[in-house]
Amino acid sequence: MLKRGGLFVTNHTQIGRRLPLLDAEAKATGQARYSSDVVLPRMLYGKILRSTLPHARLLRVDTSQAERLAGVKAVVTGRDTSGVKYGNVVVPEGFRDRLALAIDKVRYIGDEIAAVAAVDEDTAQEALGLIEVEFEELPAVFDPEEAMKPGAPQIHAHVERNISRRQLMEFGDVAKSFRDAYLVREDQFATQATSHVPLETHGCVAMYESPCKLTLWTSTQVPFYVQDDLAMTLKMPRGDIRVIKPVTGGGFGGKADGMDATDFCASLLSIKTGRPVRVANTREEEFSATRRRHPMIIRLKTAVARDGTLLAKECHLILDGGAYNHQGPITPMVFSTRFMLPYRQEAIRCDASRVYTNKSPSSAMRGFGSPQIHFAQDVQMDLIAGDLGVDPLELRLKNGLETGETTISGFHIFSSGFRETLRRVRGVRVPTGVKAGDALAGWGLGCTGFPCGTGRRSHSGSEAYSGATVVAHEDGSVTLLTGAADVGQGSNTTLSQIVAEELAIPLERVKTVSADTAITPRDFGAYSSRTTMMAGNAALEAARRVKEQLLDATAQALEANVSDLVLKDGRIEVKGSPERGLTFAEAVVGAHRSSAGRDVKGEGAFIPVTAEGSPSWSFGTNAAHVEIDRETGQVVVRRMAVARDSGVEINPMAVEGQIEGSVHMGIGFALTEELMTQQGQVLNPSLLDYKVVTPLEMPPIDVLRVDVTDPVGPFGAKEVGEGAVGPNAPAIANAILHAAGIQVKTLPIKSERVLEALKETS
Amino acid sequence: MLKRGGLFVTNHTQIGRRLPLLDAEAKATGQARYSSDVVLPRMLYGKILRSTLPHARLLRVDTSQAERLAGVKAVVTGRDTSGVKYGNVVVPEGFRDRLALAIDKVRYIGDEIAAVAAVDEDTAQEALGLIEVEFEELPAVFDPEEAMKPGAPQIHAHVERNISRRQLMEFGDVAKSFRDAYLVREDQFATQATSHVPLETHGCVAMYESPCKLTLWTSTQVPFYVQDDLAMTLKMPRGDIRVIKPVTGGGFGGKADGMDATDFCASLLSIKTGRPVRVANTREEEFSATRRRHPMIIRLKTAVARDGTLLAKECHLILDGGAYNHQGPITPMVFSTRFMLPYRQEAIRCDASRVYTNKSPSSAMRGFGSPQIHFAQDVQMDLIAGDLGVDPLELRLKNGLETGETTISGFHIFSSGFRETLRRVRGVRVPTGVKAGDALAGWGLGCTGFPCGTGRRSHSGSEAYSGATVVAHEDGSVTLLTGAADVGQGSNTTLSQIVAEELAIPLERVKTVSADTAITPRDFGAYSSRTTMMAGNAALEAARRVKEQLLDATAQALEANVSDLVLKDGRIEVKGSPERGLTFAEAVVGAHRSSAGRDVKGEGAFIPVTAEGSPSWSFGTNAAHVEIDRETGQVVVRRMAVARDSGVEINPMAVEGQIEGSVHMGIGFALTEELMTQQGQVLNPSLLDYKVVTPLEMPPIDVLRVDVTDPVGPFGAKEVGEGAVGPNAPAIANAILHAAGIQVKTLPIKSERVLEALKETS
Repeated sequence: MLKRGGLFVTNHTQIGRRLPLLDAEAKATGQARYSSDVVLPRMLYGKILRSTLPHARLLRVDTSQAERLAGVKAVVTGRDTSGVKYGNVVVPEGFRDRLALAIDKVRYIGDEIAAVAAVDEDTAQEALGLIEVEFEELPAVFDPEEAMKPGAPQIHAHVERNISRRQLMEFGDVAKSFRDAYLVREDQFATQATSHVPLETHGCVAMYESPCKLTLWTSTQVPFYVQDDLAMTLKMPRGDIRVIKPVTGGGFGGKADGMDATDFCASLLSIKTGRPVRVANTREEEFSATRRRHPMIIRLKTAVARDGTLLAKECHLILDGGAYNHQGPITPMVFSTRFMLPYRQEAIRCDASRVYTNKSPSSAMRGFGSPQIHFAQDVQMDLIAGDLGVDPLELRLKNGLETGETTISGFHIFSSGFRETLRRVRGVRVPTGVKAGDALAGWGLGCTGFPCGTGRRSHSGSEAYSGATVVAHEDGSVTLLTGAADVGQGSNTTLSQIVAEELAIPLERVKTVSADTAITPRDFGAYSSRTTMMAGNAALEAARRVKEQLLDATAQALEANVSDLVLKDGRIEVKGSPERGLTFAEAVVGAHRSSAGRDVKGEGAFIPVTAEGSPSWSFGTNAAHVEIDRETGQVVVRRMAVARDSGVEINPMAVEGQIEGSVHMGIGFALTEELMTQQGQVLNPSLLDYKVVTPLEMPPIDVLRVDVTDPVGPFGAKEVGEGAVGPNAPAIANAILHAAGIQVKTLPIKSERVLEALKETS
Repeated sequence: MLKRGGLFVTNHTQIGRRLPLLDAEAKATGQARYSSDVVLPRMLYGKILRSTLPHARLLRVDTSQAERLAGVKAVVTGRDTSGVKYGNVVVPEGFRDRLALAIDKVRYIGDEIAAVAAVDEDTAQEALGLIEVEFEELPAVFDPEEAMKPGAPQIHAHVERNISRRQLMEFGDVAKSFRDAYLVREDQFATQATSHVPLETHGCVAMYESPCKLTLWTSTQVPFYVQDDLAMTLKMPRGDIRVIKPVTGGGFGGKADGMDATDFCASLLSIKTGRPVRVANTREEEFSATRRRHPMIIRLKTAVARDGTLLAKECHLILDGGAYNHQGPITPMVFSTRFMLPYRQEAIRCDASRVYTNKSPSSAMRGFGSPQIHFAQDVQMDLIAGDLGVDPLELRLKNGLETGETTISGFHIFSSGFRETLRRVRGVRVPTGVKAGDALAGWGLGCTGFPCGTGRRSHSGSEAYSGATVVAHEDGSVTLLTGAADVGQGSNTTLSQIVAEELAIPLERVKTVSADTAITPRDFGAYSSRTTMMAGNAALEAARRVKEQLLDATAQALEANVSDLVLKDGRIEVKGSPERGLTFAEAVVGAHRSSAGRDVKGEGAFIPVTAEGSPSWSFGTNAAHVEIDRETGQVVVRRMAVARDSGVEINPMAVEGQIEGSVHMGIGFALTEELMTQQGQVLNPSLLDYKVVTPLEMPPIDVLRVDVTDPVGPFGAKEVGEGAVGPNAPAIANAILHAAGIQVKTLPIKSERVLEALKETS
């Protein structure tokens, strides 16, 4: 599987082609159908009753008044459920800690208690107000360090000291490295909670048809996981549940955990009423009741040799997990491994504790650990450079991982253009110092390496990580069936390009059917930047199988050898004799004839061959040019340069779109976004109060490319969905350091703190 | 493919199992989603303007006033179309004679002139009234014999004397047989036009999304033909069009021609407006503007030897084709071949002319020729028996085709239980004579043989007649993807049983996804009684491929030989050591592991191996017991016995349902149904005036079984959808003959005619 070098011919027609996403026009003109556009006859509208207390015992839930309200068709509570706990399907069962509807306790403000289905939303809302809930309030805890102390309120009965998972990881001889060190630097960092803010909130339509057929149209990144979770919690066979992902308005990790409460409630209400039911979060629910990015406290100690060689790291992480696990049990492990890249080291020790608190659950969010860890790591890099008196960029160049290396944790670096990304940004470095208008100007770097999907066997199942089917038709078109979930990142476009390239047909001739558990091959979903690598390789293999069949049939028809044939411009021709050939459509007809009409169909699948980490790794460097207003402390990012090794870019325009989105999210993480809570109550659950960066605040972005062809990725491609998020905050923090000498160790970087620091340093 | 004998073990768990159709509950409770249940955001409603004249030149179609009506979003006429003519896709292009919307001429009352899309049905209807059409009326012709005369109005410019197709067919030495005959009998028969009367009229929703994506949910028997026709008439690539068949409320051949005007108009209006458009026929349109059963004039001359052996037939058919061809060019050929069964003969000559008239087009209808031809043939059999003074049943026994014979036309009879069906009805014969209440009682027989789908290469394409895919999942369920169209006959149930049987899993574990051109393998559709035979064999092959993969993986896991393993009760076990085994689900997991996660997926396809006729043939005898009221002439069917050789019955309950439906339709054809026209105007286009037999008028039906295992059909099955329609009318006519000595040669059998005949004979 690794020996794909022969494929990387340079005369591609689809790979490397700049084009708008195939669904762009439909989205721009309002034709795209999101889950909210699924309108079914006799459809009901559901609403969820949520806890108003951060921690309480549920003594009584009386739905009788609500049930009597005209227009109410069903009310369900925890008593109507199987009582099976869910979490993320890939974590061991013991870590699944959440009831679909609370039975005994609620653990955060927003926890689901009951759900109502009614003829319209207003009636459902009114019915919620008629449900009487008797609570016994319990002491709550909101700070993870407090929650870990003996005697703290215990949020889950089976978890002592609220540590949802502790992960210890050690590679190499850490003690020795620290003994050998010329410099040991220790810093503590803290990051905040942020929200995913998809433009489309969680929402779905469930339709139960007796017997045993539940169809769910839902806004998700992981339709197959949703199917698994519903099967588990509804106690239905997986095959009785069909999950379809319509056009999706963003996920950013917030729709990657598996089943959401909206999915479960719509399904249960549909089963109970026998009618389709739509449930969707309001914007307020989306902010306060769904998942968020883990706030982290990071103590990082690094050993450095005299020549600047990084020797070892010792780190201590406390993750504020909120009330439930979801992907929590994976997080300390994932977060620890973020330290492995993009720098070489001989030893590392990590001690990570994910801790329950009475707040909304923390789970995956774009970059999953990278924004927090790489903020700490790369801010500390500049501080080390300062300590050593060396250039921060040169320090990184010295320590950056190169192609062919294996990290101390066993990650094999199949390709790395990391050092080249550093060299590329060196060229756009801007002067640091006082600028016109009394602003302080600075320039700083942030770097990451990022996986292209998860490695082998983090998953308990045995199916391929991604499967794909390609079928060729007599009109010269092909259908790609893929389980991959296009949530706006454009995977349908990318996968279509891969198939069109391999079969040498126009892109318009590829029809992609995706993310429908009943009809597409299984795929884990859109997370961990896995889709291009995994679903892409599966699609490529499927297309190759079709190609083989067409070559065989054509060779027979033309009385030629397969090895003498070439696919080109929608034709299969004898090399050097283009007049001897068939159109793609004719070749399909011929293949049908020679196989007694059997479909020309190819199957592909992908499971990483590496045991550790990821099939391959992307790398990149972001450089921020910031200005600080000396009067207000306001930090403005004037320009951002992003140098990426994402391997071969299948669609450079889509790559740029991902980079822009990453910078957008990264600046928000650095400067403006924070999901603020007080006693567990989210204070800013609206687009007005939660400050997402607006288009007007976005800086120009220079996208700088490096020439890397990955041996594992399809046509040499690697990920671009997440890797460029992490480096923004450290780049901005380091720019502030170089502009004003302010050490930023806490996010977000608020103007008042900067102003205060400016006063201290002046 | 023919050597399937080894499969017919007797310990089936699914084959032969009586069970309600899998969608019965959903239909009974209103949960089933028909095309009219597809409701899309911003959907418009379309209506079609139809000709009010039977034959006219179109001088002007002025849509300007209609377009100005508030709420009207688009008006289309023939000028907005490609002008490409359509017909049935399997007939040669030269026979395609119909424009999707008329441009120059209209040829019957109901012909499509324009279509409107508006915000609601009332507005669309109002807009139709605002379209000004200027006609130049042309002389029309309604009688096929008149239409064939020189000087008759010519309906299509390229067709002289209005003969849409003439088919001459001759096998054997007819002249010699007639010379050798002891008896030559000649009779003329006539049959009427009837309507399919599906409970769901033609209707669809079309949704065009730019660029190049048209999705159609339509009530059809042939989704893949609809796709082909739309591609042709809209000049779009086939792959850009997705046709989905939702739950369908009956077809009976009326939805088997391919694209209907509703399909085309909805699609064109959606393309023009960029919004989904629903178009559905009213009941009146369904009666007057869609297709109908060919009225026929049949002159039949038969040569018989002294011992009753049938020697030869000479027949002359005139088919009233109506205004357009549709499947017309196939009909004279198909109708001629109906004479080949169920009796042996040494020579035959047929001269069939299908003739255009200015009435609604005649095309396929359940039995497709059999009800007309077998009416003539089997009524004549009793007349011959009378002439010879032999028992009509014994005459049939003498001449019935047996297993292993080949007809003079080359049809190979792979299995025939025909003579056994005669013996079975012999036992239920009831006395003939005057009954209590002054009614005349009689008992009569009708017989048929019927194809199980069409033979090889009547179709110009190269794809399989039916394809199927089976995928096995880790929860122990499987998905069957089939292009077969379940239009109420229950093919989804039958195909599920076949897959469950082959894999030895519970029926509930088979999920069937059918009839969606984008995701299911191609299938010609539900006509010609082909589905169980063709889609069934394809599904069986696909399941067998899955079985092979699971056996291989299990043999590996158990360290056993594949030949020692057996599938049983959801497990794969070592024969004789049931403790050594895996569940089906475990076997799938194992197969996934051993193939690096690739899907456990099997493909199947079916193309008949026989060059002539059908893959195999069903046979049957119906016996009617009728009473005739001497005062009114009213004929009442008191009881019907149906003895069928439909091979092995996969679902006896479904078989009985098909038989009941066939008898229902057959009695209507014999006694009550007639689509009456005057000057081309349908006189009875309503359920009140068109007399479908009601449940109260249905007689009790004895279903008599014979034990036949067909070597071609899946698990030995043959067709049952159509073969039992044809024998009803002759059985009733013969019962009248034996009750009252009345020779019935014209259908329907009206009370007034019977009364008149009674007077003549008394």
